[in-house]
Amino acid sequence: MPTIQEPGDAIIKMVKTTICGTDLHILKGDVASCKPGRILGHEGVGTIEAVGSAVTSFRKGDRVLISCISSCGKCSYCRRGMYSHCTTGGWILGNTIDGTQAEYVRTPHADTSLYPIPAGSDEEALVMLSDILPTGFECGVLNGKVAPGSTVAIVGAGPIGLAALLTAQFYSPAEIIMIDLDENRLEVARKFGATATINSTDGHAMQAVLKMTAERGVDTAIEAVGIPATFEICQQIIAPGGTIANIGVHGTKVDLHLELLWDRNISITTRLVDTVSTQMLLNVVKSGKINAKQLITHHFKFSEILDAYETFAHAANTKALKVIISA
Amino acid sequence: MPTIQEPGDAIIKMVKTTICGTDLHILKGDVASCKPGRILGHEGVGTIEAVGSAVTSFRKGDRVLISCISSCGKCSYCRRGMYSHCTTGGWILGNTIDGTQAEYVRTPHADTSLYPIPAGSDEEALVMLSDILPTGFECGVLNGKVAPGSTVAIVGAGPIGLAALLTAQFYSPAEIIMIDLDENRLEVARKFGATATINSTDGHAMQAVLKMTAERGVDTAIEAVGIPATFEICQQIIAPGGTIANIGVHGTKVDLHLELLWDRNISITTRLVDTVSTQMLLNVVKSGKINAKQLITHHFKFSEILDAYETFAHAANTKALKVIISA
Amino acid sequence: MPTIQEPGDAIIKMVKTTICGTDLHILKGDVASCKPGRILGHEGVGTIEAVGSAVTSFRKGDRVLISCISSCGKCSYCRRGMYSHCTTGGWILGNTIDGTQAEYVRTPHADTSLYPIPAGSDEEALVMLSDILPTGFECGVLNGKVAPGSTVAIVGAGPIGLAALLTAQFYSPAEIIMIDLDENRLEVARKFGATATINSTDGHAMQAVLKMTAERGVDTAIEAVGIPATFEICQQIIAPGGTIANIGVHGTKVDLHLELLWDRNISITTRLVDTVSTQMLLNVVKSGKINAKQLITHHFKFSEILDAYETFAHAANTKALKVIISA
Amino acid sequence: MPTIQEPGDAIIKMVKTTICGTDLHILKGDVASCKPGRILGHEGVGTIEAVGSAVTSFRKGDRVLISCISSCGKCSYCRRGMYSHCTTGGWILGNTIDGTQAEYVRTPHADTSLYPIPAGSDEEALVMLSDILPTGFECGVLNGKVAPGSTVAIVGAGPIGLAALLTAQFYSPAEIIMIDLDENRLEVARKFGATATINSTDGHAMQAVLKMTAERGVDTAIEAVGIPATFEICQQIIAPGGTIANIGVHGTKVDLHLELLWDRNISITTRLVDTVSTQMLLNVVKSGKINAKQLITHHFKFSEILDAYETFAHAANTKALKVIISA
Repeated sequence: MPTIQEPGDAIIKMVKTTICGTDLHILKGDVASCKPGRILGHEGVGTIEAVGSAVTSFRKGDRVLISCISSCGKCSYCRRGMYSHCTTGGWILGNTIDGTQAEYVRTPHADTSLYPIPAGSDEEALVMLSDILPTGFECGVLNGKVAPGSTVAIVGAGPIGLAALLTAQFYSPAEIIMIDLDENRLEVARKFGATATINSTDGHAMQAVLKMTAERGVDTAIEAVGIPATFEICQQIIAPGGTIANIGVHGTKVDLHLELLWDRNISITTRLVDTVSTQMLLNVVKSGKINAKQLITHHFKFSEILDAYETFAHAANTKALKVIISA
Repeated sequence: MPTIQEPGDAIIKMVKTTICGTDLHILKGDVASCKPGRILGHEGVGTIEAVGSAVTSFRKGDRVLISCISSCGKCSYCRRGMYSHCTTGGWILGNTIDGTQAEYVRTPHADTSLYPIPAGSDEEALVMLSDILPTGFECGVLNGKVAPGSTVAIVGAGPIGLAALLTAQFYSPAEIIMIDLDENRLEVARKFGATATINSTDGHAMQAVLKMTAERGVDTAIEAVGIPATFEICQQIIAPGGTIANIGVHGTKVDLHLELLWDRNISITTRLVDTVSTQMLLNVVKSGKINAKQLITHHFKFSEILDAYETFAHAANTKALKVIISA
Repeated sequence: MPTIQEPGDAIIKMVKTTICGTDLHILKGDVASCKPGRILGHEGVGTIEAVGSAVTSFRKGDRVLISCISSCGKCSYCRRGMYSHCTTGGWILGNTIDGTQAEYVRTPHADTSLYPIPAGSDEEALVMLSDILPTGFECGVLNGKVAPGSTVAIVGAGPIGLAALLTAQFYSPAEIIMIDLDENRLEVARKFGATATINSTDGHAMQAVLKMTAERGVDTAIEAVGIPATFEICQQIIAPGGTIANIGVHGTKVDLHLELLWDRNISITTRLVDTVSTQMLLNVVKSGKINAKQLITHHFKFSEILDAYETFAHAANTKALKVIISA
Repeated sequence: MPTIQEPGDAIIKMVKTTICGTDLHILKGDVASCKPGRILGHEGVGTIEAVGSAVTSFRKGDRVLISCISSCGKCSYCRRGMYSHCTTGGWILGNTIDGTQAEYVRTPHADTSLYPIPAGSDEEALVMLSDILPTGFECGVLNGKVAPGSTVAIVGAGPIGLAALLTAQFYSPAEIIMIDLDENRLEVARKFGATATINSTDGHAMQAVLKMTAERGVDTAIEAVGIPATFEICQQIIAPGGTIANIGVHGTKVDLHLELLWDRNISITTRLVDTVSTQMLLNVVKSGKINAKQLITHHFKFSEILDAYETFAHAANTKALKVIISA
């Protein structure tokens, strides 16, 4: 049972949480900052159990959404809206401190890292606002400058690519082309609003995109995988003046073809989600403009968390997108 | 003697021109689009000798500045301000059509590619507005989002890096760090307004920049060379949230360290100059806020053009920045 | 029968046109620049009959959309994307030169003022792109900075307010509140996507909006009428940090309550449509993201144009929004 | 002697303060929120005497700059960078709580409302960063979109107009025209960098500006007085596409000439300073790009504060701009 350590802390009794692809990376040992024994999880909704003396926005009993990013609201990064680089926060939950896949969690900087849940909300839908929807939106859609009438390609139709697909539609692009190797995920993408899909198994994604765009390429290419091959596709399909928005977590360097791109007036962006869009996303969910819940494919009890990991880790077979784990 | 070929053409009697680093690349055979026998040159001022039937802004006798980029003003790229990608223009002068290092030149799309020279202007200073100043400004300063109080590093103190240095000061950054291997050029950079210089011969540019910036790195890193080593420095010194603005013409791919940068919230931009800032630069030169002329180190007559190339090509010895060639 | 007068002109055989509220203003004598005897009309689609010697984008037989704004593409305003203030164009059709409510029309600056109609288009829908949709979008939605999750109020549910309503949805605001005196138009607004409507006949629009927004007011208030009373409502309902985007054509000055607004961090914008969004709107219409055609309530033949005016002028009775007049 | 009341409070021993025009307004009874008996003052530098339990950025003995705006860093306004509208802060010092014209002051939200003073700083210069420079910069220069090569007019050459003049130069406009009734202030303006001045006593400011700008008007008009007549001048001189940035504190409504401006594509902005630029201004002062100290004309001891008020209140005679009051 965690306890208040700083005046800005809250202790939260978890109600619902989920598993992120990053949690699988941690289990494989890919995340050096996360030490063995750590409780994982950086997403979820819960009920405030206790707050520190400096917390003014919440009190015991409040239902809250937990942001995957903790932000102090004071440091120079937070004041620029770059909460991901908060000097005493950032992505710490389930990484450098214990996380949300537990009965209780301690959340630092509670006033600026938790969000009140509007009465009558669908709390399972809101779990999608802890990480996956702001990540797809901020790193992919906002950074990618998706605009009305524009042409977007999303490389990778996993949960994060699908989150980018859902939130890209906030800006009414004319076309959203989804590229993946998995037919099931491409079918999901079509249901979620993709106007075209490309199975890149044959290695001809570039040719397919150029054909679809009258040889011009796309205005926005969103990389939602994190390997050299998918970043390469993005470089091949980007139109002059376009933006490649990287969401993928990369483990190795990639080739950047400046010999081809130096005069193409393109931008490439990287970003760890800042969760500056959380309140906006709450508004949009409330307005019914997005069906966040359709990302959820499976449900488990806390006692079944190992099954939940098993299901999520074998998504190709289980067709899992996001799993909900409930108290 | 060139003649009017399209209704939008002008024929210009050249008064002053200069040599660009790109011209040297062409002579080495690096620019495939430029065929043998081509008259080089894409910069200069001159006097209108004749105009086509559709030209409405200029008449015989007008003194004009020639933009290195020809823009039709009609195509979708021109209407977005991306003149560099004009479907019937772009960088064509001294590349796919004959250029300005001649007694006369034909310039297509005259209305939207020439600028009237204000009475009483210093025409040698204005030659710097054909290419080098808009290139440093648009590709380096604008793309790099240089802002008041920010910290800027410019990698490469050749003419184009110095053009970025001069125009970066339009936005009053707190610090401009100039990085090069050549002590003479660094000395010039200090005269032109660099607040610090680093000779990177020892391979420790990164350490020097981090020391100067309290280990934070720079908000803007401008690449003004065009080789993997200098692009690498930019990646090493960029602060979270910063922008790497590439100006350099690259002949090979480079490494992009997404394994380090994926979560650093950075942007990387490329651009062929659009010359959308030419009128603004004319205003600034007129107002005396920039001394464009200090980029000029040598003067030649048209008859001495081979000497001019010799001088410009051996800049390390001659200390040449820009040379003026006059009729 | 008009003839080519300048090398950039086109002669167009009209296929479909419509009537704008401005045409009614002209008939009342409110538009001093428009002299008696002028053929009215600045909207429509047609077929190119002839082009001047400088026209490169179109040829006889092409089907085109006519923009209400003529732009030369060369002057300083056009190069900034402010076509409305083109020094030899702007709103001239059916104002200072003969317009589109005729069998044939001469359109200056054809290359930059006409748009090719994609094969298979619904041409009646495209007539809405000559003026009303870009006006609602640029002057209301873009200037008003409508954003995902935001709260928008539109004061005036006539054709132009409804065009703002349709195009505001490109950005997925959480709420769009429509305010008018006419119940029929409010009912149309609800069908077109308004999330709430207020009949302001009782003079209590402010109270109703504040109640709907937890006393905060709206992020964007779009003025789509053009009288002091409606501009007053916008000032009463704008939240701190919000934007009042004026579309209305005003005949008299209004009160600006700087004694209340000086410290509210608001913006007020005015704009004559620039039609810089026409190509984007064509893309969006093609993608099916907007049903432009629902603005059309009545159809007439060219021979019935007086009936068309009669119907349009008495919209309160006829419930007319936009009327289509066909050859 | 004030005491800590909230965990985020600090108690500061004042070192230097100044008087603002707003303080004079309070003395005249113009500021209803400020009750009799209130200690005035919202500017200054001091030394931390004590901090509350939640303060993490400062400790006893730290030298700090006090922002005129208190911001909690948590509320929706603070998170949008609109500190002026902080729900528990904003302009409260010397208004709804006791201010800085005292030996000690209590400052709420210390972590996000105080700034550490760099070693070796000129503290008198820094007092200009509490209010006047961020106000001129944010409300005038940023809101007014001052840009390289542009033309700016500032109506009112009092301290706040001069602060706008100094900070406008961060962006290298080609021309800054200063308009006032007082020849002394116009002379100061010329010393501070105005490229032209107009004495508007004759009522012909509009004609003078139009003559200076080839009848085009200015890109940015900054209102720095706060009365109808000066706001009227701004409307008369603004070019199509320009911005009127209001800084002045208005006591009455003004006329807005929408009958002339509705189609001119202009923006009008209002703003209470947010002090989001304070850290940037500290960087610029440190870099020597601005001489903030030249705004200071008189010095007093705390014991002479009545003389200081007397001097400041009769600026026309005393030629006072800002006065420094030292402990």
